Amino acid sequence: MNKNYLIGVDLGGTTTKIGFFTRDGILVRKYEIPTRTSSGGEMIIEDICESIELTLRGLGIAKNEVIGVGIGVPGAVKNEAYVEPCVNLNAWGGFDAASAFSKELGFPVKVGNDANVAALGEMWKGGGEGSKNLLFVTLGTGVGAGIIVDGKLLCGTHGAAGEIGHMKVNPHETETCGCGKNGCLEQYVSATGLVNSCHKLLSGSNVRTSLHNLREITCEAVFCAAKDGDDVAKQLLEKWGKVFGMALANVSSVYDPEIIVVGGGVSKAGNVVIKLAEKYFVSYAFPASEKTRFALACLGNDAGIYGGAKLALELAN
Amino acid sequence: MNKNYLIGVDLGGTTTKIGFFTRDGILVRKYEIPTRTSSGGEMIIEDICESIELTLRGLGIAKNEVIGVGIGVPGAVKNEAYVEPCVNLNAWGGFDAASAFSKELGFPVKVGNDANVAALGEMWKGGGEGSKNLLFVTLGTGVGAGIIVDGKLLCGTHGAAGEIGHMKVNPHETETCGCGKNGCLEQYVSATGLVNSCHKLLSGSNVRTSLHNLREITCEAVFCAAKDGDDVAKQLLEKWGKVFGMALANVSSVYDPEIIVVGGGVSKAGNVVIKLAEKYFVSYAFPASEKTRFALACLGNDAGIYGGAKLALELAN
Repeated sequence: MNKNYLIGVDLGGTTTKIGFFTRDGILVRKYEIPTRTSSGGEMIIEDICESIELTLRGLGIAKNEVIGVGIGVPGAVKNEAYVEPCVNLNAWGGFDAASAFSKELGFPVKVGNDANVAALGEMWKGGGEGSKNLLFVTLGTGVGAGIIVDGKLLCGTHGAAGEIGHMKVNPHETETCGCGKNGCLEQYVSATGLVNSCHKLLSGSNVRTSLHNLREITCEAVFCAAKDGDDVAKQLLEKWGKVFGMALANVSSVYDPEIIVVGGGVSKAGNVVIKLAEKYFVSYAFPASEKTRFALACLGNDAGIYGGAKLALELAN
Repeated sequence: MNKNYLIGVDLGGTTTKIGFFTRDGILVRKYEIPTRTSSGGEMIIEDICESIELTLRGLGIAKNEVIGVGIGVPGAVKNEAYVEPCVNLNAWGGFDAASAFSKELGFPVKVGNDANVAALGEMWKGGGEGSKNLLFVTLGTGVGAGIIVDGKLLCGTHGAAGEIGHMKVNPHETETCGCGKNGCLEQYVSATGLVNSCHKLLSGSNVRTSLHNLREITCEAVFCAAKDGDDVAKQLLEKWGKVFGMALANVSSVYDPEIIVVGGGVSKAGNVVIKLAEKYFVSYAFPASEKTRFALACLGNDAGIYGGAKLALELAN
């Protein structure tokens, strides 16, 4: 029998998204289950495997029609199998998760870091479709990134490839980043970073700006104010674009991707995000790389399950 | 007949180094010929091919015993074949050099950027022996780098992977780099950059330092003065190490190599170079990558021919 189905899993700290796909990447079914992180996440594997088996029966898909499962996890992964203990999963990890899932399910499994797996999704069916050399950056609470070279995820020796959120952009920073060091990219260009920069600017200034009137500062609000012509918001975003664009130019000097796909909360502001980043990217990039393309991510929260399915597709050969 | 020989060529602006190796990487013969760059380098291919054929006859190696030829060139290369016009070769390039050499010689040829090919050499038989995920950095007139992932060269979409010498480390720099932009890593940490920093420091200061007594400032002289306890030289090198180490930490946040091998003129100062770079690397690196190893390059000017031979070895399969 031909194997025609792929399963993508996006294992998050609160919910786990599961998607069933045809081999061509058509989404057959998707849903979420809660992630039970209690007791070091001891129920995680069982919950996911039971859910997958139940859904396969419901869809009338026999187990031997499934090529495999690809799973994105919120932590470092080695050899597409071994998961380091994950902070957001109550330290779940420290073992070969691919083998553990595979033993339970009876078909092959590959595991990857969630940002990396999402990058695969955006390459396969999202903003980077058609490209095999891609940088996917998510600007949310932090800055995550996935690096794809020749269609394959780059994981790194210590599972730390794509940790561009922790590139140092300001050695004089006194505030500490989540990683324990100072002056990381994500302290300035993540959604949280942009909001922080805004708070700092407002607290120390008497300039007239509509941002003073907001009940709560959010990324969307800053982008809206800039669109409405607020000079302070505009300056804030230019500074943001400069830091982000320069960092992307530096990433590009390392591995020279074809396209940079930007996702996450900040990217909801739309094309203006891309335009700002690209403007400064071009001014700082090595000349040969100036024409690197930019695109918005377009799979949203589904990037993880699409990427998981793409990871599983590698099991087909 | 078994194919047992590899040929590595390092095509430079002044001389071309050619090495004949066994399949295991034992150097059988090496020598240099002048590179004739006149008339757009029209004699380059003929000169190299004639020399190779003559040497093969001299060594008693039949053509069908040769696996292939790997050639490093001083410019951007696409698909291990197409060479962009090379500034240092009087604009030689702009065509598929692998095919052109192969047609002339009658065996398969691969071409790569010289810094990248040297990285392959250091991985195969040099400072990075035994590792398959390596960053090779040469600190000479400029800063060149080769990136190896899973034993293979990473070239980039526009042939610009490894252009880490043009990562921007100081957006406020007013002097222009050779690439046409400002504030590039190589303006500070190359041999030339270190000497320039020294000149600037001395011209604007009345501090007592033995560096004032030098007839000519060289990297070696700065390292010597620091070793002899000169405080100004020591400060200069700490600043150098800080810029270099932070840039390497940022490269590491992108693709997380196993080992960083440092070569080129500056590295002649020995282990102190590695120690300085590593100290600041550790203080800026993403925690998971802090244990990245450092080593000095050890093939010197032969890295290119060893790397060419390693590139040719890929033709064996």
